[in-house]
Amino acid sequence: MDKIFIYDTTLRDGSQGEGISFSLQDKLAITLKLDDLGVDYIEGGYPMANPKDESYFKEVKSLKLRHAQIASFGSTRRANTRVEDDKNIRALLMADTPVVTIVGKSWDFQVKNVLKVSLDENLKMVSDTIAYLKSKGKVVFFDAEHFFDGYKKNREYSLKVLHESQLSGADAIVLCDTNGGSLPAEIAEIVGDVRENIQGMLSIHVHNDGDLAVANTLAAVGRGVRQVQGTINGIGERCGNADLCSIIPNLVLKMGYHCLEDGGLRKLTEVSRYVYETANLLLRSNQPFVGVSAFAHKGGLHVNAIQKDKGTYEHIPPESVGNERKILISELSGSSTILVKVEKFNLAHDGKLMRTILEEVQNLENEGYQFESAEASFELLVRKKIGRYKTFFDLEGFRVIVEKRENGLPLTEATVKVKVNNIQELSASEGAGPVNALDAALRKALERFYPSLKNMKLVDYKVRVINPRSGTAAKVRVIIESQDKEDIWNTVGVSENLIEASWHALVDSIEYKLLKEQEF
Amino acid sequence: MDKIFIYDTTLRDGSQGEGISFSLQDKLAITLKLDDLGVDYIEGGYPMANPKDESYFKEVKSLKLRHAQIASFGSTRRANTRVEDDKNIRALLMADTPVVTIVGKSWDFQVKNVLKVSLDENLKMVSDTIAYLKSKGKVVFFDAEHFFDGYKKNREYSLKVLHESQLSGADAIVLCDTNGGSLPAEIAEIVGDVRENIQGMLSIHVHNDGDLAVANTLAAVGRGVRQVQGTINGIGERCGNADLCSIIPNLVLKMGYHCLEDGGLRKLTEVSRYVYETANLLLRSNQPFVGVSAFAHKGGLHVNAIQKDKGTYEHIPPESVGNERKILISELSGSSTILVKVEKFNLAHDGKLMRTILEEVQNLENEGYQFESAEASFELLVRKKIGRYKTFFDLEGFRVIVEKRENGLPLTEATVKVKVNNIQELSASEGAGPVNALDAALRKALERFYPSLKNMKLVDYKVRVINPRSGTAAKVRVIIESQDKEDIWNTVGVSENLIEASWHALVDSIEYKLLKEQEF
Repeated sequence: MDKIFIYDTTLRDGSQGEGISFSLQDKLAITLKLDDLGVDYIEGGYPMANPKDESYFKEVKSLKLRHAQIASFGSTRRANTRVEDDKNIRALLMADTPVVTIVGKSWDFQVKNVLKVSLDENLKMVSDTIAYLKSKGKVVFFDAEHFFDGYKKNREYSLKVLHESQLSGADAIVLCDTNGGSLPAEIAEIVGDVRENIQGMLSIHVHNDGDLAVANTLAAVGRGVRQVQGTINGIGERCGNADLCSIIPNLVLKMGYHCLEDGGLRKLTEVSRYVYETANLLLRSNQPFVGVSAFAHKGGLHVNAIQKDKGTYEHIPPESVGNERKILISELSGSSTILVKVEKFNLAHDGKLMRTILEEVQNLENEGYQFESAEASFELLVRKKIGRYKTFFDLEGFRVIVEKRENGLPLTEATVKVKVNNIQELSASEGAGPVNALDAALRKALERFYPSLKNMKLVDYKVRVINPRSGTAAKVRVIIESQDKEDIWNTVGVSENLIEASWHALVDSIEYKLLKEQEF
Repeated sequence: MDKIFIYDTTLRDGSQGEGISFSLQDKLAITLKLDDLGVDYIEGGYPMANPKDESYFKEVKSLKLRHAQIASFGSTRRANTRVEDDKNIRALLMADTPVVTIVGKSWDFQVKNVLKVSLDENLKMVSDTIAYLKSKGKVVFFDAEHFFDGYKKNREYSLKVLHESQLSGADAIVLCDTNGGSLPAEIAEIVGDVRENIQGMLSIHVHNDGDLAVANTLAAVGRGVRQVQGTINGIGERCGNADLCSIIPNLVLKMGYHCLEDGGLRKLTEVSRYVYETANLLLRSNQPFVGVSAFAHKGGLHVNAIQKDKGTYEHIPPESVGNERKILISELSGSSTILVKVEKFNLAHDGKLMRTILEEVQNLENEGYQFESAEASFELLVRKKIGRYKTFFDLEGFRVIVEKRENGLPLTEATVKVKVNNIQELSASEGAGPVNALDAALRKALERFYPSLKNMKLVDYKVRVINPRSGTAAKVRVIIESQDKEDIWNTVGVSENLIEASWHALVDSIEYKLLKEQEF
């Protein structure tokens, strides 16, 4: 089957996303990950616009890449200058990459109103730039910015720009839906027309403003495009770029195309999470293919059906993209759910033990616990029942004080007294709020005994009022997400007292961390 | 242009999403919002599976809906039973809704291996159920579960199921991509074939496992489907359902169909945020159309281009979906919403005052306040600006202590010192948790001066972490719902300290109560 070339622009267009800022080290680390995934091109940056990118292009040369080629990105020469004098073009040559991607205007309106040059001068800017870079031995891809909007307004001119780029030697022409508002049917029709009029490699680069970036990309491939541009997790400005984490598995598993180096697809989930982590962004748990809940099953009936046949509620095997099935424990779940969850402990034969666990889960769920988003607490519960659990510390007591004077900010302090191996430790800490102070004091007390707690951090904290009609006396459920270098885990606590609920979730989180390190 | 009917299943299929659990009050409040948005059908729940849903169907009858019709959801009768004896069918009739949606199997594999009945019995289960409900005067929609997977494996049988449902009187046939793995081209082809073979109203219900739910829905509409099912924000199990927040604007603004009641589209962003808030889910800032960053412009060039012409980087005008461009200090932001809210104070003529209020709202929103679900706090803000406000007490200080010994329940105490008309009052109270104790102590101190506070109670208390990546040091937003004999009102507080945030919401709630009694 046909090969589709994958052009990743996470490090360039992706980094335009709100709140995203990659350090040089981040960029190099992601480059290695992308190469390992097996993409064909990695657009590393915009050397003219960003000094950090200059260093990137220097450093990236010393990485031993298996397969991927590095591309630098820049604009066509400015109006009315010689291409060899253009600072941007010089920066591109300095970057010294095998591939150079050049963006130019293909919408007449933009040429006249934003660039403010004649339509002819724009054509020359495109052809001069490409021809010059070709004469320097580069592989040149031409990004036709706003191509689809331009085509809809002035088909003839937009096609003329493409022709010009091709005559000048562009190795691929990239059709851009810059505003991200086109529909799949439009994309298919327009790409079909381009395919009839333009020879050579076509590429597609779309944004997700209409929530259609993945479909638009697939539609373009359906009409003959053989290079696809996108970003990991669809990061990018506004609503993001087309998400390679969805495009690649659709192309490979659903449409039968060849993408990535062998075995790459199974690394997709890992790469997705790595990029979230490096970009310091929250995972989207319901993200297709690679999200932690993408193959989550809730409710006994579904789980039952899944065990009979995976295909009943799964469109692909989760392991094909390196993800895994997740069985949620919830009010609706019966024993089949629990069976699957405790598989790793080999308990299936012990019906009595299983019933005890199930009863315990149901009792706790009636109290407001929810284990579907707190698997670590669930595992602790099971371990307690089967004797594969130990305590790491005993609480002797804690006290939290919040005190406010007139309109000042409140002062918050916590003290914690614990005992570890018969040694008592008392610690105190201030905090931004009561739970923060308690968390800080508890860690302070324990880190002396368990230094690995320094490598763990709390990354998410959720509070949910369970029976809100009781007003401030309502029960609350606290869910805490923690993370270390290898794992992410969630724990839960429930109480009418928010501090108490938080305490239970904090303690579970710490116990889970210590237990997994001393697995027994 | 053709009307596309919108069938919302946020409250039923959406509530299957991980971590989503709507209270009865949440469901009723969302019902009102959806009706106000102008959807045609609201699927309220699954009465057989969920006792909470039974109460919903009772209570929803007392809501005065403008336009939407309520639907209940259930399965076809069980195998080898009489439909009138089936508990599920009885629960549906008890729900007493004008519309009933019945799900049945249309994939032969599922019939044989999951239901474990003969293909003929399955047809009878479908026809008996629909015919019976029609005889009871219901509008009946038939959900053909796994229809697309079934069609791909056994076209003839899947179409037979549709025929059977039609012969039995189904008012619409809903084609379900239950596993969410179909491609737009497949959907278009299969729906085209169905359209040629089946008369009457067709509907589409897809899941987002392939990241194509919006495109698949539009593809089905392109082939003649005239009812669309989905959820607000695409909430739902695994990767979610088709997102109505993307589908509706694409249908209306891009494809020219008619959806929603007049003016509904402009409420879309507000409804999206309301559902996130009620479901206690994080907003997806890059969500197409309704996300806070969907029209955010980064980089001077874009902003400049945007100012020359909006079309250069925007696919639709943000205000068409009730969203706004995000460029700092936009004097137009939200002004229409605010205008509506301050109508009763007759301020529209005073442009300068309006701007001051807007600025204050924007500042507070940047800090994490949200006034959409806290109108009482908003009114207090306006009153402060226009001088129709007075204080009823001054806080001299409060202290909250939570103390726990070993494994006992924590002891929680609060003391509050206030001054009213120069009289100091010190009071103390225990409580189930810190906020409850603080609330009790504050009322105790004030009731002596303001006896009417005895008639007011807090009925709902919500806590929301705003920047969860900061772990326990995250900022929290507290929303409190209060009630007296005449009214229900909501107030908000934001702080890194939960106690402080709760304090602000408590104080607003009491001030609002006292102000409305002494209206001046």
